[in-house]
Amino acid sequence: MNNFNFYNPVKILFGKGQISAIADEIPAGARVMVTYGGGSIKKNGVYEQVMTALKGHTVIEFSNIEPNPHYETLMQAVEIAKRQQIDFVLAVGGGSVVDGTKFIVAAMEFEGEDPWDIMTKRVPVERAVPFGAVLTLPATGSEMNSGSVVTRVSTKEKLAFSSPFTFPKFSVLDPETTFTLPLRQVSNGIVDAFTHVLEQYLTYPVNAPLQDRMAESILLTLIEEGPKAIHNPQDYDTMANIMWSATMALNGVIRVGVPTDWATHYIAHELTALHGIDHARTLAVVLPSLLRYKGKEKREKLLQYGERIWGVDAGTEDERLEATVMATVSFFESLDIRTKLSDYEVGEDTVKTIVKRFQERGVKNLGERADIQIDDVQQILMMSL
Amino acid sequence: MNNFNFYNPVKILFGKGQISAIADEIPAGARVMVTYGGGSIKKNGVYEQVMTALKGHTVIEFSNIEPNPHYETLMQAVEIAKRQQIDFVLAVGGGSVVDGTKFIVAAMEFEGEDPWDIMTKRVPVERAVPFGAVLTLPATGSEMNSGSVVTRVSTKEKLAFSSPFTFPKFSVLDPETTFTLPLRQVSNGIVDAFTHVLEQYLTYPVNAPLQDRMAESILLTLIEEGPKAIHNPQDYDTMANIMWSATMALNGVIRVGVPTDWATHYIAHELTALHGIDHARTLAVVLPSLLRYKGKEKREKLLQYGERIWGVDAGTEDERLEATVMATVSFFESLDIRTKLSDYEVGEDTVKTIVKRFQERGVKNLGERADIQIDDVQQILMMSL
Repeated sequence: MNNFNFYNPVKILFGKGQISAIADEIPAGARVMVTYGGGSIKKNGVYEQVMTALKGHTVIEFSNIEPNPHYETLMQAVEIAKRQQIDFVLAVGGGSVVDGTKFIVAAMEFEGEDPWDIMTKRVPVERAVPFGAVLTLPATGSEMNSGSVVTRVSTKEKLAFSSPFTFPKFSVLDPETTFTLPLRQVSNGIVDAFTHVLEQYLTYPVNAPLQDRMAESILLTLIEEGPKAIHNPQDYDTMANIMWSATMALNGVIRVGVPTDWATHYIAHELTALHGIDHARTLAVVLPSLLRYKGKEKREKLLQYGERIWGVDAGTEDERLEATVMATVSFFESLDIRTKLSDYEVGEDTVKTIVKRFQERGVKNLGERADIQIDDVQQILMMSL
Repeated sequence: MNNFNFYNPVKILFGKGQISAIADEIPAGARVMVTYGGGSIKKNGVYEQVMTALKGHTVIEFSNIEPNPHYETLMQAVEIAKRQQIDFVLAVGGGSVVDGTKFIVAAMEFEGEDPWDIMTKRVPVERAVPFGAVLTLPATGSEMNSGSVVTRVSTKEKLAFSSPFTFPKFSVLDPETTFTLPLRQVSNGIVDAFTHVLEQYLTYPVNAPLQDRMAESILLTLIEEGPKAIHNPQDYDTMANIMWSATMALNGVIRVGVPTDWATHYIAHELTALHGIDHARTLAVVLPSLLRYKGKEKREKLLQYGERIWGVDAGTEDERLEATVMATVSFFESLDIRTKLSDYEVGEDTVKTIVKRFQERGVKNLGERADIQIDDVQQILMMSL
């Protein structure tokens, strides 16, 4: 096992009716900005529950945060929040709203010239306005970690940051808030969480059997509960199990002491930045090709994954590797998530564009062995056409 | 799944060489009290590493904290710490030192008459002096939770408390610190951690498959790594896996949203209080009888445990239940932990004494269904004779 530090101070309030509990978590007298997206929370009763819980606070609303939240939009929120002397922000929505809110609270306290430097120049975030979250979409895990991904429209860049100061103070996970989600978002969420686990699991063995089994626990649960959610998205227990699985997939627990990959995410972000394809779908496109391309290096973990998760235990090693990747692909496809670039009308031109962007950005050394270079990225993407 | 709140802000510094990192975790200029036990840390190099890391701080030492730490001893530490205006305490040792230190830091800020009221009158702990831990014995999980068990010698009471203010600020888990442990403590630790998992797992199903699998992950890892540790206690990876398993067993992660039992612990504490039997050994005595006595109520989870952990999948239901309990007993015995009261020269007199103490204390409603009464305790203990 590798050395590690683990720290996660997020308080989780899980279950039906928990939105009302935020009243006890936000400092009395705080001026609260509520951030949200396109307004679905006004249709499913979440907005009302939040506003009832916030009675007694001065509340400012900031809505219309997009999927893959835009720097340009978030900077408007920063300006309003500063002007209104906001001292607590409450994100209500899915991973985009939570990610966007992390950028807002960091940018509010940023002292340099442009908060975008947090992403491009890696200027460390050394403080942030406190914030909490009411999650309405199980997927990204942002509700229980300190990471954030923001897109700059003007430059078509999608970049990440994290900081010990951008953990939510609390997150409410009420499975009932997911009952009215479009199925597309439910299946996206399952694939997103599943891929988060694989990024931390399909690397190379370091004798960390507990972490392996915990990762496998999440995978098995998503495989078991995923199809149920698609067929019966208002089943409380099913959605509760998916919601908690998605959170556990990226709250740091399964990552401790093991190598992690994240090349799939890094490459896939470009497809969203360039074409606006749903995040989970870009992962489903890149991951299978990356696993095949790196089959030799990931051999031991891929074989373990195939056997323990998909029951692949027969054939030559090559056959088992391919059967394992195909089982993963079939799972994604069974959730109505396509896995080829052509399914999204993306062709070789985009591969060239991504390669060019990576060259300009000087991208190198991706993956758990830091051995994925731009040429490799090109080949992986070509395999996904 | 049941509703739950989860909060665990302990920072974990895991791996070889991590003791030196405490220098960054303790506030500059803090007056530090280092608490420890019988002095084994002076023989294995841990004391030296800690003192090197604390250079620049005023350091007061308080040693001789016993296994099952005594209220009487801890109150001496409280007096010294107050007199010396200590503002950070560093526990160096196993669960007893960490538990004892939790009581010390709570008692230092206690404003009532006698801090023992925290245990007996359930006076809530509303603040505490900050503290950290350097763990040298994987077992209790105290390094990553807020709970503590303290023994009062004069009354032979062993009682527990917890508070959101008694989480360690950080805990160092360096597997190398365990290399010189007596085998008796290694096997005690494995059985202690294993039983912690079972207390949170062997109850009744609430449709929480992820929590079940995570609990099973710890059990399987302890079963796999436990015998290795007994045969080769200086194997770094083995001890690392046991250390992390013991921490994960009681840091709250597997408990979320599920019922928990704890009757075994509650009953077993009496055996330590009355006869000084090692904590883990008292668990190994009580648990099998409790599982048999409650076999009907715990049926579904016991069968799942038997099948997934011990491969018990044949025979009538009663046969499978008994085979499952026997597999657990065999595992404990394989680690040289005896499972009968007679193995510890304890007889029926002690059962009577415990029953009388429970009657005086008005004990009732133990277990996940709150259906274990004093009569049941008596029968469980009689089955363990």
